[in-house]
Amino acid sequence: MTRVGVLLCGCGMYDGSEVHEATLTLFFLDRAGAEIVCIAPDIAQYDVVNHVNGRATGEKRQVLVEAARIARGEIKDIKQVTASELDALILPGGVGAAKNLCDFALKGADCTVRPEVAGLIREMHQAGKPTGFICIAPTIAAKVLGAKVTIGTDRATAAAVEKMGGSHVTCQVDQIAVDEENKVVSTPAYMLGPTISKIALGIEKLVAKVLELAS
Amino acid sequence: MTRVGVLLCGCGMYDGSEVHEATLTLFFLDRAGAEIVCIAPDIAQYDVVNHVNGRATGEKRQVLVEAARIARGEIKDIKQVTASELDALILPGGVGAAKNLCDFALKGADCTVRPEVAGLIREMHQAGKPTGFICIAPTIAAKVLGAKVTIGTDRATAAAVEKMGGSHVTCQVDQIAVDEENKVVSTPAYMLGPTISKIALGIEKLVAKVLELAS
Repeated sequence: MTRVGVLLCGCGMYDGSEVHEATLTLFFLDRAGAEIVCIAPDIAQYDVVNHVNGRATGEKRQVLVEAARIARGEIKDIKQVTASELDALILPGGVGAAKNLCDFALKGADCTVRPEVAGLIREMHQAGKPTGFICIAPTIAAKVLGAKVTIGTDRATAAAVEKMGGSHVTCQVDQIAVDEENKVVSTPAYMLGPTISKIALGIEKLVAKVLELAS
Repeated sequence: MTRVGVLLCGCGMYDGSEVHEATLTLFFLDRAGAEIVCIAPDIAQYDVVNHVNGRATGEKRQVLVEAARIARGEIKDIKQVTASELDALILPGGVGAAKNLCDFALKGADCTVRPEVAGLIREMHQAGKPTGFICIAPTIAAKVLGAKVTIGTDRATAAAVEKMGGSHVTCQVDQIAVDEENKVVSTPAYMLGPTISKIALGIEKLVAKVLELAS
C-alpha cells in the first residue's frame, strides 16, 4: 500500500488549508487505496481570519489542532515524520500554506520556508519520491526544489515562481503540470477555480500522477 | 437549475459540521450542476472541541463564522432564508448537528430542534420539496417530520429515532434510505465509516436522489 503524507496548515482558505482542496485530496487518495498520513507543524497560526468578512480576528489558534478538523483527529506533528516512512507527500493549498508553512503571502519571492517543511520536502526529493503541490503551495516547490510548477495563470505569482528559481507553466484548472525530473506534480485548483467540481478534476489527476510516480 | 440549501453548523466533526461530509455534499451537488446555497444559524457554538484530543477548550466561536470555512465565505444566516427560494435542503452530519442545530447529543429523544431549523425543514416538507440528512442529522428529520430514516446500525440512536416518532431503517454506508412519502433521504456516512471514499458512496447517492425528487 502506498503511504502518502498530506501536509496541512490549519483549516480554512484564508488562514489554513483550503478545506475543499484538502478534503478532495484525502478522498481521491483513499479511493485509490493509498494509506494517508496527515501531518502539520505544531505551531501557532500566523493569524485567524473570519471567513465571512475576511478580517483578522486577533484570536490565537494552533495549526496542528485546527488541521485536525480536516484530518478527523488523526494527525502527526511534522517533527515526528521522516521521508523514510512516506512514499509520497502532497501539500494542499489555502492561504495558510503561504502564511504558516512559509511566508510567501507576506514576502513573495523573498520568502522563507519553515525549516521542518523544507527539510521534509528535500528529503522526499533526495529519496526520489514524488511530491504534489496544489493551488498556492507550488510556490514552496519552486523555492525549495527549483521545480517546474503551475500556479495557474496569475502573472505576479508566476513571476515570483521564476524569481525563486523555479519555472512556471500555465495550466488550466482541470490539468496538472508535471516536472518528471524532480517528480513534482502541481495543479492550480482555487488559484483559478471556479467551483469545487472543477478543481476536483485537477486534484484527481494530481493524486493519480503522484501515486503513479510513487509506484 | 436546481437550488439546494446546505445547512451547516460549524466546521469540525466534534463541534460543527463534519468536514468531509459537508465538502463531499458540495462536490456532488456542484458536479450535478445544482446551485448551492450554504446556510447556518448565526449563533454561538455549543462548545469548541480540540480535534486532536477530543476535549472542550472553553473557547467561544460562532456557528456561521466557522461554517464559512467550509462554504468559502458564501453563507447565509438561516433567518434570511425561506423554503420558497430553495428546491431542496441537505443537512450534513457532525456532532455540531446534534449540539448546535438541536440538543440531541445532550438530551437524546427528548431533544429540541432550534425553531429556525425546524421551521425551514417543515416549510420544505409542506411545499413538497425534498430534504436530505447525513450521519447523525437524520435524528432531526425523525423529530421534526416523523420521517423514516437511517442512522446506520447503532441501536441506541435507532431507538431514539423511533421514540421521537420516526421509523428507523438499517442501512450500510454505501446506501441510502428513502422515505418517498415525506421526500426524506438519509445515509449513515461516518455513523458507520470507515473512510472518506466509503462515506462518499452514500453521499453521492443521497445527492442524486434529492435532486431527482426535486425535479
